[in-house]
Amino acid sequence: MTDDVEVDFGEDGLVPAVAQDADSGEVLMLAYVSQTALERTRETGRAHYYSRSRDELWEKGATSGHTQSVREIRVDCDADTLLYLVEQAGGACHTGHRSCFYRTIEGENVGERVFDPDDVYD
Amino acid sequence: MTDDVEVDFGEDGLVPAVAQDADSGEVLMLAYVSQTALERTRETGRAHYYSRSRDELWEKGATSGHTQSVREIRVDCDADTLLYLVEQAGGACHTGHRSCFYRTIEGENVGERVFDPDDVYD
Repeated sequence: MTDDVEVDFGEDGLVPAVAQDADSGEVLMLAYVSQTALERTRETGRAHYYSRSRDELWEKGATSGHTQSVREIRVDCDADTLLYLVEQAGGACHTGHRSCFYRTIEGENVGERVFDPDDVYD
Repeated sequence: MTDDVEVDFGEDGLVPAVAQDADSGEVLMLAYVSQTALERTRETGRAHYYSRSRDELWEKGATSGHTQSVREIRVDCDADTLLYLVEQAGGACHTGHRSCFYRTIEGENVGERVFDPDDVYD
């Protein structure tokens, strides 16, 4: 038996969480997680985050249906960053791409588009 | 030809950058990047970050020799997070692990230890 790692949520109460496709290894997105978001993720097995712009807890895919089933949660050495290993339904990105990291810094589109946002969001 | 993506460095002038092994897909670490750190990374091809605790630019591996050769830089949809696809020399983590994400949140060690920190750091 091991003890849970105590996550350091810092001054703003949030840590960045990287979501990675548990099968392909593709990095899908980065979002922020509060203690409550982490608890909800662990309780439900579905990825929850905290929106800094909307200032609220959100479940990934609650609107789009593109949920993330969390297979494992990892913590980094400083316990201030999380890694969610997920099974991604549809695409992670609101632009319709599988991953939010669909562009190189030179502006080249290297990502796979898997849905049309107009069909998913009103 | 495409134009470079304009990165949104926000109020604190920093964005999180995920470093991923370009070959294995393993997520190695997360650190923060300033505009200067990004420029140095692009100029040199070696990963540079900005240390929030030491308040200074640093080159990954400058002390340990465990440098990161950057094969590609990606930007997320909001242009406020970077993904460095790297060739990692040695291990990314100061604990001696290949990846900083060597623990599950339940405290189980699932990472590969690739060097002894006592041999690398004074």
